[in-house]
Amino acid sequence: MLPLALTMGDPAGVGGEITLKAWKALHNAPTETPFFLIGDANHLKSCSKSSGISASIELIETPADAKSVFATALPVLHRPLDGPVDIGTPDPKNAPSVMASIEMAVRFVEAGDAAAIVTNPIHKQSLYQAGFKFPGHTEYLAFLAGITTPPVMMLACPSLRVIPVTVHVSLREAIDSLTTDDIITISLITAEALANDFGIIRPRLAIAGINPHAGEGGAMGHEEDSVISPAIAELAKRGIDATGPWPPDTMFHGQARESYDAAICMYHDQALIPIKTVDFDGAVNVTLGLPFVRTSPDHGTAFDIAGSGKASETSLLAAIALASQMAYRRNS
Amino acid sequence: MLPLALTMGDPAGVGGEITLKAWKALHNAPTETPFFLIGDANHLKSCSKSSGISASIELIETPADAKSVFATALPVLHRPLDGPVDIGTPDPKNAPSVMASIEMAVRFVEAGDAAAIVTNPIHKQSLYQAGFKFPGHTEYLAFLAGITTPPVMMLACPSLRVIPVTVHVSLREAIDSLTTDDIITISLITAEALANDFGIIRPRLAIAGINPHAGEGGAMGHEEDSVISPAIAELAKRGIDATGPWPPDTMFHGQARESYDAAICMYHDQALIPIKTVDFDGAVNVTLGLPFVRTSPDHGTAFDIAGSGKASETSLLAAIALASQMAYRRNS
Repeated sequence: MLPLALTMGDPAGVGGEITLKAWKALHNAPTETPFFLIGDANHLKSCSKSSGISASIELIETPADAKSVFATALPVLHRPLDGPVDIGTPDPKNAPSVMASIEMAVRFVEAGDAAAIVTNPIHKQSLYQAGFKFPGHTEYLAFLAGITTPPVMMLACPSLRVIPVTVHVSLREAIDSLTTDDIITISLITAEALANDFGIIRPRLAIAGINPHAGEGGAMGHEEDSVISPAIAELAKRGIDATGPWPPDTMFHGQARESYDAAICMYHDQALIPIKTVDFDGAVNVTLGLPFVRTSPDHGTAFDIAGSGKASETSLLAAIALASQMAYRRNS
Repeated sequence: MLPLALTMGDPAGVGGEITLKAWKALHNAPTETPFFLIGDANHLKSCSKSSGISASIELIETPADAKSVFATALPVLHRPLDGPVDIGTPDPKNAPSVMASIEMAVRFVEAGDAAAIVTNPIHKQSLYQAGFKFPGHTEYLAFLAGITTPPVMMLACPSLRVIPVTVHVSLREAIDSLTTDDIITISLITAEALANDFGIIRPRLAIAGINPHAGEGGAMGHEEDSVISPAIAELAKRGIDATGPWPPDTMFHGQARESYDAAICMYHDQALIPIKTVDFDGAVNVTLGLPFVRTSPDHGTAFDIAGSGKASETSLLAAIALASQMAYRRNS
């Protein structure tokens, strides 16, 4: 199998440390998919020193070199930083290298040199200050891939997969902007990804209501009748196993979770409260609807602990494992 | 300690069965607080027969008789039904006895004959059809107690207590109707109850935001700034340990839960999604701000399984245990 491409993320954040820790955890396991980091080898060495994580680092010329290097050193495809790094303090000066790392990863998967992309956390404000025109990672990846249908964010842990239909908008705007079409489109992309990348032949989608008790027949809100149920009916027509709208509060306990493969949620916290309650450290962010596999740890740059070696690599390890499984299934 | 008064709930629901099961589970434990049921002894006997739960039932004249009877039989303070019962099918004809059971329980605690009230599930629509003028249990109890400040609903399990500030309204109305005053009033009632009934000397309240990432400084909604933060400031002024507004999605994992004694939540599902995800069967509904202790299992009449003996007594047992602890603390 091809190696995974890891992007550097913000050099002032914890990306370097958790990548070093992830390599230490995986390099001795011969069954693991090797990975390489696209970033600055010198910066990584200083990360290793400052955080006390001893790890060998080796420059590679091409992704193909990662396989033979991985057992003895973290393979780094060198993309020099644009300026010095003050760990814990983001600096727009380094934005070009942050963006280049992402673009290089996309080109490698497109060229068939890498199996999938795992992105380390970026700091959006620094990128905006440097002229970055995209709301975040996902939109930039869609632009680089040349696709126009917005990709879909899934959060996944071993016992739950959730997909918010509306994401980073106020709760009021989430209600106002929710549409039948978006629920349908996102559910179709999810069902296709579950089949292709997760090996679930006939995915079962549980569609959440938005109001308490899913509106209780209109007594507590009408969006279930006017917006959500029509989407479920259309999905059923198209042969998708979609049920609901389910009362949101009883959808996420252990036994309920066994009855579906993914929960389509109407707003950010309806999706994120349950998954972060169930598995705070192990949840992985997965982008569906891209022409390649992309996962990322479900946390930010953690500037407050960057450089201390305290950052946990758990979510990055889960992101690496999931990217590897998804890429394997997509290509098999 | 005085016995607990259990109300009958809807006779066509699972109340009878779970009460029989709870008595079987507890009658041999000499340290348990005894309880008695206010209901129809004949109906209970037929519940016992139809559901296959063998239990002795004994009529008592006054609550004081419960103590000596409890070890050998479920003590029942007889309040005859108003008509026949078809298990699984609610009938407004029996509404008077359902209401009378609740009223009698209130009079017993007020008279100092019972320690606390544990209510079995009622079916509101049947009561409405019979002329019941209250939205639910809680408002009826407040009316019977003669209080005007609306009581507060808490859901509690061993590792989490949540209080929704807005409850049974649409999500849109929850946003529209959320006020600083309500957050303050409900937080004060909660803090007082935690001190008096839960033995927490200086309760720590975690106040949730309402928008994703608690609004992220106004980028995703302004209610944190305009409604929630002013409430937290006022609570702090009054000496309450209230913090927030916290990003809702990261408030409910195991480690986060250790940092507070109760989470004040802005809408129904923000409170109920996490607690039902963490402990679906063991969550207890507690009414704060009444002049007596009242708990109830956190489920409904379950007409679909009533009579089959399948209903789980887990939540009722948790409600009985919590009522007993709360009454003990309040009176000690």
